[in-house]
Amino acid sequence: MEAMRSIIQRYRHKRISLAEAGATRHRSIFNGLKALAEDQPDVVIIHDAVRPFVEEDILLRVVTAAKEHGAAGAIRPLVSTVISPSADGCLEHSLDRAKHRASEMPQAFLFDVIYKAYQQCSDYDFEFGTECLQLALKYSHTKAKLVEGPPDLWKVTYKRDLLAARSVIKEKISQEICVVMNTKDEESAGHLLKEVLKKELNCVNVTSTVLDHTGGNVQKFPTDQCYSFICVNVVSSEFQETQKFLSTLEESGLPLLYPVVVVLVHCCDLTLAPLASKMESLMWIRSLAEDMKKRNVLLSGLLLNYSKDEQKLQESFQQGASIIAALVKERSSALAGQLLLA
Amino acid sequence: MEAMRSIIQRYRHKRISLAEAGATRHRSIFNGLKALAEDQPDVVIIHDAVRPFVEEDILLRVVTAAKEHGAAGAIRPLVSTVISPSADGCLEHSLDRAKHRASEMPQAFLFDVIYKAYQQCSDYDFEFGTECLQLALKYSHTKAKLVEGPPDLWKVTYKRDLLAARSVIKEKISQEICVVMNTKDEESAGHLLKEVLKKELNCVNVTSTVLDHTGGNVQKFPTDQCYSFICVNVVSSEFQETQKFLSTLEESGLPLLYPVVVVLVHCCDLTLAPLASKMESLMWIRSLAEDMKKRNVLLSGLLLNYSKDEQKLQESFQQGASIIAALVKERSSALAGQLLLA
Repeated sequence: MEAMRSIIQRYRHKRISLAEAGATRHRSIFNGLKALAEDQPDVVIIHDAVRPFVEEDILLRVVTAAKEHGAAGAIRPLVSTVISPSADGCLEHSLDRAKHRASEMPQAFLFDVIYKAYQQCSDYDFEFGTECLQLALKYSHTKAKLVEGPPDLWKVTYKRDLLAARSVIKEKISQEICVVMNTKDEESAGHLLKEVLKKELNCVNVTSTVLDHTGGNVQKFPTDQCYSFICVNVVSSEFQETQKFLSTLEESGLPLLYPVVVVLVHCCDLTLAPLASKMESLMWIRSLAEDMKKRNVLLSGLLLNYSKDEQKLQESFQQGASIIAALVKERSSALAGQLLLA
Repeated sequence: MEAMRSIIQRYRHKRISLAEAGATRHRSIFNGLKALAEDQPDVVIIHDAVRPFVEEDILLRVVTAAKEHGAAGAIRPLVSTVISPSADGCLEHSLDRAKHRASEMPQAFLFDVIYKAYQQCSDYDFEFGTECLQLALKYSHTKAKLVEGPPDLWKVTYKRDLLAARSVIKEKISQEICVVMNTKDEESAGHLLKEVLKKELNCVNVTSTVLDHTGGNVQKFPTDQCYSFICVNVVSSEFQETQKFLSTLEESGLPLLYPVVVVLVHCCDLTLAPLASKMESLMWIRSLAEDMKKRNVLLSGLLLNYSKDEQKLQESFQQGASIIAALVKERSSALAGQLLLA
């Protein structure tokens, strides 16, 4: 209970009540229902925490179906054929895959239907039961409506599921990138970068914003879904401006849920300035990044050859975009503080 | 057929015959069996290409069971409850999850048992059937032995499965790292790096090798499983030696299957040499990396502060190890050619 309370507080969740878990699935659900009994809600949704990718649409559909039928649950086609083994571990018979479905979550119920069912449950049900819809059928004589759910409802069960879940989240948050330009001068480089990034990352939503001179209007950013910021610098490498931007970012609470990637792109014609001295002048990024890493912000620098030669310029921007794509997709804290070259 | 032939040739596979696919699963399998009929094998294994992580152990176990029982197949516990819907899309009944199993692959059969079964198959079986074990039961009266398989046998079905498969492969090939030291001088830095890497990557198998002066004994490397090489340089940055190493690597055929990561680690006391000039002297890595990327070798440089101060030294090696871990795990081609700093 203490761990859950601290999670709720840390991520600033509202409108969550906790009920103590039981020794089995059905005992836990019954505890949850008892905790809701005072409020007498019309409809109750039951969901598994191990199915983290539930969308509003399927919640709406099971609730609507539950209002009409008393109970409803998400189902999916079977991926493998289901068989029933004999006592000696041999094939007894196999089920027709087309005539069966996997029962998934979420499920929704009229509160009275499911509460009445749980009040009548036998000890055997509480110990060995796995299916709430079955309880509604058995004890409340309510035939649940089955609603086809999306594949994202899968149960994170094995190690490979954790790996998949991590990739799904990374892919989701890399779909939104904000290109930040500090001055009017930076707009042409910024817009070019935006175009190349869109191609590189495939249908990603790249927005852009021009900061005011205080560096402070992060509030206007698409901050509720955007965890990647590409800051374009053409003229100079303003340490203070970057720092102001980073504090506003931190104040927004954005780095609370996911690591925020910030790439400081420095456009610079390398035929005019020697690379080594240019890199040396950007070394402040390293110590700033060390500091920001503790605050869940992954800061790195990208030195982009802003050549007058059209072909070289295209090449640099292309390479720069694939470096940015890698940083945005992988969110590797090991690469924070690095100065990359395109 | 042409695509498959070119894959077999490209990856230098031996002992593979192709049979033309049919319109359904069972028609394809029957074609495969017909192609084998001349050789009259004792036992035949049927497997799905969409289950790429099959290990020798489970193959051995189904074959052994098939020799005794005539037929055998891998099974797994059910993750979700299986239900049967009524015609109007409502819950008819739910199956007891503990009494059912998911039928997976591989399956093994005495050749005669499965060939006889397929020869008697009805058109309905060929069109709608999903389970080979069922055919063996129905037409050859052979009760298949069910063998508990590992979770890795899962079917790569949805996009999330592709993401998981990619992560599983990346994790697998990042488990083996070879630290290459060119001279005796480099051994102390190399061994320190080895120790830190082992801790950083958690139970990874880090081997090391000292190259002869021609840079050429890649044959002695653990090359059949190792796709990551960390080359330690203490004294100088020998372009030619590196190039020799890379050609031997290429000749070994190693980069054929997976991208090979090569990190050139340059240890250098940064209080003695200015960072900028040191980096400039390593710029050759960039163009070499560009070239190697086309050959599926991802080359990058890591400049490591080989400080006399014990604490600073530890910090650099720690940071270096996490950078190497990120490069080895992600295998991102966008980061090839970068000079990283620890």
